[in-house]
Amino acid sequence: MARVVVDVFLKPEILDPQGRAVQGALGRLGMEGVRDVRQGKQFVIDLEGDLAGDRAKLMEKLAGELLSNPVIEDFTMRVEA
Amino acid sequence: MARVVVDVFLKPEILDPQGRAVQGALGRLGMEGVRDVRQGKQFVIDLEGDLAGDRAKLMEKLAGELLSNPVIEDFTMRVEA
Repeated sequence: MARVVVDVFLKPEILDPQGRAVQGALGRLGMEGVRDVRQGKQFVIDLEGDLAGDRAKLMEKLAGELLSNPVIEDFTMRVEA
Repeated sequence: MARVVVDVFLKPEILDPQGRAVQGALGRLGMEGVRDVRQGKQFVIDLEGDLAGDRAKLMEKLAGELLSNPVIEDFTMRVEA
């Protein structure tokens, strides 16, 4: 079994209003010195069998096209265990 | 500077309809053997200074009360660099 973790974040140059809201809320609740907050999505995908070869390529393609929007988002993908 | 990463996921016993939708879509797009998908949120928080002592306790409290809903969600928090 392979566990694939895909993190999806807005590109740095795209304004992140959710992150900005969290930044403000943290400050109001007493957390000082919060320089920046970015909010992203995380997908944890459990697969039967291993992830290698063409299957890994397909997973990477789908992470970039289905799980994230390549116009405004970046993603990272890693395989655990 | 400290970077805090908080991952927030629905508790295992809570149905995750977004994850279920992604699971179905991955299958339709040719990814076979997808056993489970869970979709969560990830917050990347850049702080001035270090995170230790009372400040770390406050951050952990806010991760559990502001960034996640303790009734239906679990969170993990880690400090990078």
